[in-house]
Amino acid sequence: MDKFGLICSLCSRKIPFALEGKCTCGGTWLVEYDLQRAALTFTKKRLRARPASMWKYHELLPIAKLSSIISLGEGSTPLVRLTEWEKKLPLGGLYVKREEQNPTGSFKARGFASALTLINESGIKKVALPSNGNAAAALSAYASRAGMEAYVFLPADCPGLIIEECVNYGAHTYRVDGLIHDAGAIVEEGKLEQGWYNVGTMREPGRVEGKKTMGFELAEQLDWTLPDVIVYPAGGGSGLIGLWRAFHQLLAMGLVTGALPRFVAVQEDGCTPIVSAFWQHAQPETLPAGSPMPTGMRVPRPPNRNLIVSILRETKGTAIAVTREEIHAATAAMGLCGISSSPEGAATWAGLQRLIDSGWILGQDKVVLFNTSHAMKYTLYPTKLQLPLIKSYQDFKSIHSP
Amino acid sequence: MDKFGLICSLCSRKIPFALEGKCTCGGTWLVEYDLQRAALTFTKKRLRARPASMWKYHELLPIAKLSSIISLGEGSTPLVRLTEWEKKLPLGGLYVKREEQNPTGSFKARGFASALTLINESGIKKVALPSNGNAAAALSAYASRAGMEAYVFLPADCPGLIIEECVNYGAHTYRVDGLIHDAGAIVEEGKLEQGWYNVGTMREPGRVEGKKTMGFELAEQLDWTLPDVIVYPAGGGSGLIGLWRAFHQLLAMGLVTGALPRFVAVQEDGCTPIVSAFWQHAQPETLPAGSPMPTGMRVPRPPNRNLIVSILRETKGTAIAVTREEIHAATAAMGLCGISSSPEGAATWAGLQRLIDSGWILGQDKVVLFNTSHAMKYTLYPTKLQLPLIKSYQDFKSIHSP
Ligand SMILES: [Zn+2]
Ligand SMILES: [Zn+2]
Repeated sequence: MDKFGLICSLCSRKIPFALEGKCTCGGTWLVEYDLQRAALTFTKKRLRARPASMWKYHELLPIAKLSSIISLGEGSTPLVRLTEWEKKLPLGGLYVKREEQNPTGSFKARGFASALTLINESGIKKVALPSNGNAAAALSAYASRAGMEAYVFLPADCPGLIIEECVNYGAHTYRVDGLIHDAGAIVEEGKLEQGWYNVGTMREPGRVEGKKTMGFELAEQLDWTLPDVIVYPAGGGSGLIGLWRAFHQLLAMGLVTGALPRFVAVQEDGCTPIVSAFWQHAQPETLPAGSPMPTGMRVPRPPNRNLIVSILRETKGTAIAVTREEIHAATAAMGLCGISSSPEGAATWAGLQRLIDSGWILGQDKVVLFNTSHAMKYTLYPTKLQLPLIKSYQDFKSIHSP
Repeated sequence: MDKFGLICSLCSRKIPFALEGKCTCGGTWLVEYDLQRAALTFTKKRLRARPASMWKYHELLPIAKLSSIISLGEGSTPLVRLTEWEKKLPLGGLYVKREEQNPTGSFKARGFASALTLINESGIKKVALPSNGNAAAALSAYASRAGMEAYVFLPADCPGLIIEECVNYGAHTYRVDGLIHDAGAIVEEGKLEQGWYNVGTMREPGRVEGKKTMGFELAEQLDWTLPDVIVYPAGGGSGLIGLWRAFHQLLAMGLVTGALPRFVAVQEDGCTPIVSAFWQHAQPETLPAGSPMPTGMRVPRPPNRNLIVSILRETKGTAIAVTREEIHAATAAMGLCGISSSPEGAATWAGLQRLIDSGWILGQDKVVLFNTSHAMKYTLYPTKLQLPLIKSYQDFKSIHSP
């Protein structure tokens, strides 16, 4: 095979690498590598000597040449061990992966560094994205870095600080009267006419590949072992998909051994499509009044719900919903550890407490929580920027002058 | 000599290591190491193989034992190269050191990680600090991490997000009707009665030592070379002192060769004690109306002004003041590079433009700018927290119930 190609998550069909998201069967295109070839240089010793960056794992990223990398300093985030709490709970290990220390303050930086490297290599110059906020901020920054034009579409209640970030990075920024899938519909309707490349969740294989580096880093930081449990805040869920791919590749190459960690997806009460699918509960058509907070977890229709649920089952994991009050209490508890956590990160802490209480997580388990984004982003700060609020692609066209 | 001890910056007197700030002669105690001993293990090859963290440089940090390290994941921040601007300006090299990607969103994390490790080793349990904000946030986080009690005193106009950070980390947080030196006077007056250890600028040697790791990292990231020019936003100026110590130690150990970089201190118009001292201008007694922004650069009475000026002269550097308008323009320019910069970081960009225009920085120079803190911290966000506003230590006593 080539250095890398695509394989369908559902029908296992293989095609050469391309900027494609979904197979005709409905499965997701995942990047598959010639692992034997990669293993020649992707060795513990060599990796240890490479500079701190997500690009140290380049053999398992679908990049044609290193000179085309678009970087703002992503990856190599700290893994902080909370020994006090390990004793208190108790746990065999408790770690927080501080993804908020990425450029643009979230793990989304990894995905767009790799996706925009690929997209830039292929000559595309206009990208568009529906986003709850952090992905839009990351896309905006990396698009500027790459010399591309970015169009981002955010729910109207997106936190003011994130809106200001996008504008500051030079993106065409629009508020949408609706949720992330309403924003997605606008991008899909306009993409041909506007010449946009839609970099939404699982539209192309680059973003998941970038997020995969969280898994490589985690294994390396744990001295080439895997934890027992991963607790991850799930919106679109592609962070989970990335971790799952990373661990499988490391296992296949013999760099780690043993079982996959049990994957836990955490969501906030009021918008729990992954939890509902996992437990085979009916999912309400609309969000309840007083719907969940406008965080990365609020994704009512995750494009890869089935794949995520299958990952949770394969790893003997679970899915859990926590309340807003639990999230607030968790923010306070993490603050007293010296860690400022976003609502998403705090949700993983809240989920952990629940799963310990229920006996699902045991005293000897080694657990890793992911703080996926910066606490400050969610400040209740009403921006003074007067941004257009649109309902449809027609609204966009009526106000946008290229 | 011992592994390390103190040497006075002014009279060169040497004493064993202690938590002391100033020599009786008025000089600053700096940590001096047995560099021959350190050089046995502080080698390029070994450093390359150590995990990404400021603690990889532990031979040149005054830590008795590695097991006592208080860490939240500080150091190993990215160095981003702006090749587009190198061509445009032109410059031989243009880099931004992204110190905002530290825990608590600023380079202050390095200083408090090392200072609190030392202070914790010596059994102190209550720390207090006058601060413009970022130092207080960092102290608050690391104190919680270390199980210490922190008291922080901030100017009344400190940005709301930073105040909330301190509170979230569990610090006793007070707003002071005045500037940072007024806050400092309160700490000094109360320290005996309250049992506070004052961790203010240059009160002990640990903070500068932690900041020194920025210099080691920079040299390693530039493949063991030094840039021609360092542009640094100066408040208390201890970041500059740390870089200067780091480069001297690397030169003495033969890990780098050549001249020291020319150090540039940048301040904002309206509060420029270092610029005034460097150019031997008179410094106004009070800040002008419409005084500079409440950033880390607003330090009217830097405790180490003389040492900083001597460093600028020794390195053939300079000091420069920029306007608020230039800072805002620089924020926009950096945003379009994909980098969200704090006012301090933007000031270095503004300073760079000035020094290119004046011919002080030349087309072949390799320049490093320091973005010392996170852009978001300076959002004009009025916190709803009702914090006490005090004018004196008596005010503090009248409201604080231990
Ligand atoms: Zn298929
Ligand atoms: Zn002296």
